[in-house]
Amino acid sequence: MSQVTIKDIEVLNCEYGKNTIKFLRLHREGKKHFVKEVEVCAHLRLTSPQEYLEGNNSLVIPTDTIKNIVLVLAKKNGIPSLEQFAIDICNHFMTTFCQVAYVKTYVQEVPWQRLHEDGVPHIHSFICVPDGIRFCEAEQCRNGPLVVFAGIKDLKLMKTTQSGFEGFYKNEHTTLPERHDRILCGELFCKWSYGECKDFDFNCIWKKIRECILEAFAGPPDCGEYSPSYQKTINSIQMLVLSRVSQVQVIEAVLNNTFYNVVDMKNLGLDNDKEVLVPVEAPYGSCTCTLGRKKFFEAQGQMMRDERKCQFGLAAAQGN
Amino acid sequence: MSQVTIKDIEVLNCEYGKNTIKFLRLHREGKKHFVKEVEVCAHLRLTSPQEYLEGNNSLVIPTDTIKNIVLVLAKKNGIPSLEQFAIDICNHFMTTFCQVAYVKTYVQEVPWQRLHEDGVPHIHSFICVPDGIRFCEAEQCRNGPLVVFAGIKDLKLMKTTQSGFEGFYKNEHTTLPERHDRILCGELFCKWSYGECKDFDFNCIWKKIRECILEAFAGPPDCGEYSPSYQKTINSIQMLVLSRVSQVQVIEAVLNNTFYNVVDMKNLGLDNDKEVLVPVEAPYGSCTCTLGRKKFFEAQGQMMRDERKCQFGLAAAQGN
Amino acid sequence: MSQVTIKDIEVLNCEYGKNTIKFLRLHREGKKHFVKEVEVCAHLRLTSPQEYLEGNNSLVIPTDTIKNIVLVLAKKNGIPSLEQFAIDICNHFMTTFCQVAYVKTYVQEVPWQRLHEDGVPHIHSFICVPDGIRFCEAEQCRNGPLVVFAGIKDLKLMKTTQSGFEGFYKNEHTTLPERHDRILCGELFCKWSYGECKDFDFNCIWKKIRECILEAFAGPPDCGEYSPSYQKTINSIQMLVLSRVSQVQVIEAVLNNTFYNVVDMKNLGLDNDKEVLVPVEAPYGSCTCTLGRKKFFEAQGQMMRDERKCQFGLAAAQGN
Amino acid sequence: MSQVTIKDIEVLNCEYGKNTIKFLRLHREGKKHFVKEVEVCAHLRLTSPQEYLEGNNSLVIPTDTIKNIVLVLAKKNGIPSLEQFAIDICNHFMTTFCQVAYVKTYVQEVPWQRLHEDGVPHIHSFICVPDGIRFCEAEQCRNGPLVVFAGIKDLKLMKTTQSGFEGFYKNEHTTLPERHDRILCGELFCKWSYGECKDFDFNCIWKKIRECILEAFAGPPDCGEYSPSYQKTINSIQMLVLSRVSQVQVIEAVLNNTFYNVVDMKNLGLDNDKEVLVPVEAPYGSCTCTLGRKKFFEAQGQMMRDERKCQFGLAAAQGN
Repeated sequence: MSQVTIKDIEVLNCEYGKNTIKFLRLHREGKKHFVKEVEVCAHLRLTSPQEYLEGNNSLVIPTDTIKNIVLVLAKKNGIPSLEQFAIDICNHFMTTFCQVAYVKTYVQEVPWQRLHEDGVPHIHSFICVPDGIRFCEAEQCRNGPLVVFAGIKDLKLMKTTQSGFEGFYKNEHTTLPERHDRILCGELFCKWSYGECKDFDFNCIWKKIRECILEAFAGPPDCGEYSPSYQKTINSIQMLVLSRVSQVQVIEAVLNNTFYNVVDMKNLGLDNDKEVLVPVEAPYGSCTCTLGRKKFFEAQGQMMRDERKCQFGLAAAQGN
Repeated sequence: MSQVTIKDIEVLNCEYGKNTIKFLRLHREGKKHFVKEVEVCAHLRLTSPQEYLEGNNSLVIPTDTIKNIVLVLAKKNGIPSLEQFAIDICNHFMTTFCQVAYVKTYVQEVPWQRLHEDGVPHIHSFICVPDGIRFCEAEQCRNGPLVVFAGIKDLKLMKTTQSGFEGFYKNEHTTLPERHDRILCGELFCKWSYGECKDFDFNCIWKKIRECILEAFAGPPDCGEYSPSYQKTINSIQMLVLSRVSQVQVIEAVLNNTFYNVVDMKNLGLDNDKEVLVPVEAPYGSCTCTLGRKKFFEAQGQMMRDERKCQFGLAAAQGN
Repeated sequence: MSQVTIKDIEVLNCEYGKNTIKFLRLHREGKKHFVKEVEVCAHLRLTSPQEYLEGNNSLVIPTDTIKNIVLVLAKKNGIPSLEQFAIDICNHFMTTFCQVAYVKTYVQEVPWQRLHEDGVPHIHSFICVPDGIRFCEAEQCRNGPLVVFAGIKDLKLMKTTQSGFEGFYKNEHTTLPERHDRILCGELFCKWSYGECKDFDFNCIWKKIRECILEAFAGPPDCGEYSPSYQKTINSIQMLVLSRVSQVQVIEAVLNNTFYNVVDMKNLGLDNDKEVLVPVEAPYGSCTCTLGRKKFFEAQGQMMRDERKCQFGLAAAQGN
Repeated sequence: MSQVTIKDIEVLNCEYGKNTIKFLRLHREGKKHFVKEVEVCAHLRLTSPQEYLEGNNSLVIPTDTIKNIVLVLAKKNGIPSLEQFAIDICNHFMTTFCQVAYVKTYVQEVPWQRLHEDGVPHIHSFICVPDGIRFCEAEQCRNGPLVVFAGIKDLKLMKTTQSGFEGFYKNEHTTLPERHDRILCGELFCKWSYGECKDFDFNCIWKKIRECILEAFAGPPDCGEYSPSYQKTINSIQMLVLSRVSQVQVIEAVLNNTFYNVVDMKNLGLDNDKEVLVPVEAPYGSCTCTLGRKKFFEAQGQMMRDERKCQFGLAAAQGN
């Protein structure tokens, strides 16, 4: 077929940036040390795609410069919270470079915790405890609002009872038996957006949301709470967060669940009363839901709703 | 704050499905064997989110049933191409279950190649050669068109010259020197969408696109072609695909590049003329562009354009 | 060259087994649940290599049977400790199958911890907290002693001061400056062997050793302790374990260290007083030492010493 | 218990070094470029463990210097073969540093292959094709011989018939049925040692051994060869290598096999004649054998035999 030229095509998107900018920000108060180790991604869309289409680099801020700026901001501002740092990055690019049409930044924390010896906190020693990774995102279009997301990922939870799955749709391809007592286990991903962020204590809010997630997943410590499906558990988590944390406007949750198969030991002459179970890691079920406050969208309008749909709900789009 | 109830919230998205359904489809012609090993993800959105909001499972097709259906379709239809198999899955769910509002499927291939001994193909032995992974996606909303995407990922390419980066924007945070002869190395991800798929030879098209990618990346075998930036190389790949493969309507390319740092050996008393270089794996630069044919969008309208923007361009959204 | 036959060769080793046998052992006391999820490898050497050399399978216990036995033992005996379970497996194979010449088993724990809500332990909910993975090994030759090893791996620790590296050997290839205040950060692997295991409380001992490791790494909470090298820190850990835990006869420690590079910000107009540092993940330094009690080897003799050398000290042998 | 001091303990092993030293060695002949990208680990044992026991660093060659030396050798000598480069490193450390008692080096290749366009080789473009990774090791004790190993890892092979497993040992824990037609699929690791290396063409030998492995695994292209067990297939591979490649003295092979489970579709109303199979990735079977030439050990004596046993046969020791 004939040659395609630039006038035949339309640029739907183009952006670039630096990924996995890893660094440690060390803060000292006398002999006491505080660490924040993060991994940052920062992406830009420029006002013209000329570097893609024409090989004209004159507007391109090199990814090496992007990295330098991230490090300089960390040096100057510290990292009071991941979210504030992500906001600082967005602000810097928007105010410094008029050729930047859009900036997006992602910040993820390396989960260092202060070591304790017999309950006494150590002044400069830390241990890595990855029981759920904190992250955030901030993005801004020129002349648009700064949108801030926060989240937790790689949070693996299990409850060994108070979970079932019954009353589902059945046809000739159904072989799954109904179950009213099974293990519910999965890896949770939650991401939420804030409304206009004025004077938020992001660290405090994040901690509160993490507690909501654990509480809604597990139910009361002395008895738990029955989960009729992974889906309903997701919803319980979301509803509790929305009830307790007014700053959250939209919340997405994805639960990738590991099924535990009770080993049939009849052939081996034993009766296995759900004592020995084998995890099935592939294939695995995945469910996701994104909820928003009606009031928020009524105030913001349909465009915001569409934007949020595109910003969330990517679980299936990512494929794996 | 006060309890949030279902009437206060809006469901922006909810879906669920089975991921990493791995299986091998073995086909025999006499003593000659043919294998297709794949990994399938299949996700559904139902007409009501009642299982999330109310714990009512009556419409839910269990993910175990989804898995069964995928395996049954593989048994019945075989896998003539990844794309046809993805289409078969979409069609099955849409025509069988009226409660399905949307179906999306992702199929990825395990890159088995037939073994050869002294040039003779073996009738039943294979070797895994992961030099770029083929995948596809198909998705359909009820009453909407079936959209088919295909792609290649994890394709690692390098050229050791004919690459530079000059004339970029500079300010006080710029420390990168200009370079007119550097190594260009990266991992490429390409995904494209087809228009209406009638009688496509998906295997042949995919192979042709892979060849375009390699040719545009490398340039002529005897001299190569100068790349002024990663961005321009991406564009060259996209333009060549659009020129040669009329079935492609939109194409996204993401290049995650590994920078090779020439080791400074002056302190070690040696002059290193770009002979010993060290790869810098973190941080890494990433650039992405999505191009569409103007004619396609003029025919399809703005809504399609917005949809495609949301279906592609996820590199930054994914964060890492 | 001419055909090689069985009489020309010598079998230096042959063994086989099942790896990554993953299962969850659930134990209930009234409404309170206890979980132990493990991953087991079990390998056998048979009295004859006839299945390798002659294709005679008559002595081969299928790896599927090995898996069944592991699950049956878990059902019957529970998992009071990883070590006791590894011993149970060894005992079972040695006493049941006269064709087994050697058995080796490896057990690794999935680090589930009971969830707490406001300090109250939950009766059946758990969170995965991988801050160092517990494992053990047990092995036995027919007519030989049962040897039990335990260990911790993937333990990531950091101290942000009280670490230096000075007075090292220098020549024309040395470019590293001396440092008296740097970050010491690494991933620790420790493995130790017990003597004759009679009535050991393996869980209690393991916990005590973990505490020794953390204490020796970090030093006193209010001031730390200066480390002149990674090597000396390893030694401090080993010496403290040997001092406090009489059951440990030999202890190996491997520290894979991540260097943190202080970012030079002079070109960026800033003075970086070790506030912003970049981790260097490749290449990384690795050091390892294996210490044994003299008394133990004096009692056991040279053969035991050689065996232990072969059982430990594999860090370099593994290559990466 | 009482404090343990240095005089109470014995150092069974201590060593240290630099791992994953990654670099690219670019060689140009006119406009034609040749690349060799490798990952090197180099470990040393010093004549005294004083840096571990006493914190005396005076003999310690910093790992940073080790890295510098590896890069300098690459610059000066190039990488004619992985094995020659590993030998060069050993020689350098042994001849330069009298405090080095033992040196071990591991070199692994990044599998770049020259790109071809329509059969024409490109002068400077490459694609990464990881269909089995080449590696080698070299080690030397002061006053001892230099020992060279080479190998291939991550080689995934499959044959879809001509494999069975029958006549194995059965008892009450056996549930595996006998099979005379199953899929044989696995990841192969092979490592072998050479005798005294004089004027070996290591690249040619390695290529020949790879061909032997494929041929022995698959059998004749037109019919294959029946494998009665994974173990026997391992042996066939080893015997063919020893028959064809006289330089190989000892050869270890490890096969980690993936079982493919024929999906039972009776409940789904279908008869599945081994057309749809599901891979079982955990647990997986593993078998390993190490064979040596009798003549070699008769010449070298028992000590060499013991050393080789310790240098090979690590599959079970590594646990996973």
